Amino acid sequence: MKKIALIGSTGSIGTQTLDIIRKYPQYFQLVSIAGGQNIERIIEQINEFHPKIASVERKEDADKVMQQTDGKTAIYYGKKGLIEAAVPPEGDFLMNAVVGSLGLEPTLQAIEAGMDIGIANKETLVTAGHLVMDKAKRYNVHLLPVDSEHSAILQSLEGNDSKEVERLIVTASGGSFRDKTREELKGVSVDDALNHPNWSMGAKITIDSATMMNKGFEVIEAHWLFNMPYDDIDVLLHKESIIHSLVEYRDKSVIAQLGTPDMRVPIQYALTHPDRLELQDTNRLNLWDIGELHFAKPDFDRYRCLRYAYDAGRTGGTMTTVLNAANEEAVSSFLKGKITFLSIEDRIAEALERHKVIETPDLTTIMEVDNDTRAYVSSRIE
Amino acid sequence: MKKIALIGSTGSIGTQTLDIIRKYPQYFQLVSIAGGQNIERIIEQINEFHPKIASVERKEDADKVMQQTDGKTAIYYGKKGLIEAAVPPEGDFLMNAVVGSLGLEPTLQAIEAGMDIGIANKETLVTAGHLVMDKAKRYNVHLLPVDSEHSAILQSLEGNDSKEVERLIVTASGGSFRDKTREELKGVSVDDALNHPNWSMGAKITIDSATMMNKGFEVIEAHWLFNMPYDDIDVLLHKESIIHSLVEYRDKSVIAQLGTPDMRVPIQYALTHPDRLELQDTNRLNLWDIGELHFAKPDFDRYRCLRYAYDAGRTGGTMTTVLNAANEEAVSSFLKGKITFLSIEDRIAEALERHKVIETPDLTTIMEVDNDTRAYVSSRIE
Repeated sequence: MKKIALIGSTGSIGTQTLDIIRKYPQYFQLVSIAGGQNIERIIEQINEFHPKIASVERKEDADKVMQQTDGKTAIYYGKKGLIEAAVPPEGDFLMNAVVGSLGLEPTLQAIEAGMDIGIANKETLVTAGHLVMDKAKRYNVHLLPVDSEHSAILQSLEGNDSKEVERLIVTASGGSFRDKTREELKGVSVDDALNHPNWSMGAKITIDSATMMNKGFEVIEAHWLFNMPYDDIDVLLHKESIIHSLVEYRDKSVIAQLGTPDMRVPIQYALTHPDRLELQDTNRLNLWDIGELHFAKPDFDRYRCLRYAYDAGRTGGTMTTVLNAANEEAVSSFLKGKITFLSIEDRIAEALERHKVIETPDLTTIMEVDNDTRAYVSSRIE
Repeated sequence: MKKIALIGSTGSIGTQTLDIIRKYPQYFQLVSIAGGQNIERIIEQINEFHPKIASVERKEDADKVMQQTDGKTAIYYGKKGLIEAAVPPEGDFLMNAVVGSLGLEPTLQAIEAGMDIGIANKETLVTAGHLVMDKAKRYNVHLLPVDSEHSAILQSLEGNDSKEVERLIVTASGGSFRDKTREELKGVSVDDALNHPNWSMGAKITIDSATMMNKGFEVIEAHWLFNMPYDDIDVLLHKESIIHSLVEYRDKSVIAQLGTPDMRVPIQYALTHPDRLELQDTNRLNLWDIGELHFAKPDFDRYRCLRYAYDAGRTGGTMTTVLNAANEEAVSSFLKGKITFLSIEDRIAEALERHKVIETPDLTTIMEVDNDTRAYVSSRIE
């Protein structure tokens, strides 16, 4: 029985994680959850799963949740509550499905508690990859990717010697605007950007897909998770999202993981790795029905965020912290209608340009750089 | 140091095996070889690699070989010689690259000697899969496939639990005539048939690719090698031969092995499994250069040999022995210009129709059925 802490329980990854836990009560027990402001859903979740601990973002919501649940679940709130939910006394596994750099501290604390971690929160590795990886190594903790791309890489590495790997190839659908030129991107709306062709995901990651910053983050994440130099990580445009990523070995043999787009596959694999459980109500992949798969090389002038991510990754230190913080702030402003789609890139470029990198920063430095970057980007918008 | 016996040394797989042994003298030593009638090449091979044992098909050729080599290699001939070469006193690994059911006895004897076996000779498993697999299990010997498809499946199974496999998907280029209708097949010549779009291989296997009997054999081979029921093995038309085969697991995750078509990859993997060595002068797979991959479901009325193979496989016993023997005889007659391309199918169909299956036959029975089938098919031709 794996005892699971789930933070970000009301989002897309969170609810799909609960679908799996619901289906396999003989293998998984939910011991704690944390959500944001969607308290109706969190109340439902508490009343269904009866976790020992639950947390929400705001104090007033915590009070409401307490009134509408049976009193057996301890209710917390805020950043402290998030940590309580992430690291419950008896937890074996943290599914970190919160959005943004908010996910960093719970990850670090769960590692110290010896919990394995399902990383759906990619900002954690982008903003502080060296801290997370060092600590995971020290505490002998497994970091299991939940992104379909990194799960594909993990699956393509199983049974092989990582020293024999020559290249990781991360596939990219190209997002909502893949067929648009930069000229055509000038007039796009928030609604256009939120209309992803293959995956139904949260708002932030859908915008990150449209700018390809999501793919840039994934390159950085792959660098940390699989200990690969940036020169040996390629991005491959593949609009059908059927091949989820590939690994090339030194005999030039390439192993790939494929499937119809369904996030429950990587979520479940993170929970069951290295075993696999039945996943019934999903579509089998029949390539004869799909007929054709398409591939192209990404143009770094068309997708500037991808270039920013490679550059920031290669520079290292606090540069990826800036990349992430500037992106979070700019995307949030775009979603509120304050800036245009292409301004997202401009705001990020400015923040990176201005930053003087600090090598191997500690957590306090990272937090400071994160706050400072957000304030700067915000000052360039309001 | 792996001590290698190579039978079928002068053919396509044989010479490519020698390319690998030549490149890695620190890992591999060639202790014996057997060839057919291409004695010039076998003399070259003896003078380069100095195996302890060599064998050719005919006595008169053995005499010539003896005169033109340094006397340190013992020269044998015929069926007995083939066994001497397949099972040298100090051999660790037999690469069985002969063509046809001739490869069966050397395989069985090498298993008894405890040698691991690289199976490039697929007729061995088609004609007597149960004998080979039972014996391999008893002697705890590894059978390593050299076909690109089965190597792909083996690679896609590494690090996974075979109980979690739901389906094997064997890809097929469709061979030289994949774009022709049955009507158009009526007029095709031997030269047309030998012109395979993706792979440069021997004559027999190239014809087997054009009829798709090769794929049918591979389905039967996959059934034996990976212990899968026929209902859980599919054939997928994929004209570019980039995805070499796929494995579907019970979570509907699909693992595949890909690469530019180069037989040295599966040959080398059979020699090094589960490790991988560098393979330098081959093309890296860049899917962005290829642009598109195509897939289709095979039509069993268009590719009758595929249906015959599934049917014979499901019936089991001596039925696949008949399938293989009738095919060998018919293809040989086609290559000699005695029958038309479509007659290959007719001759096989007749032989299968006429045969009364014997369940779990022993080696003698298999040999008898093999001879009887050849005689019958031959009588229908001359």
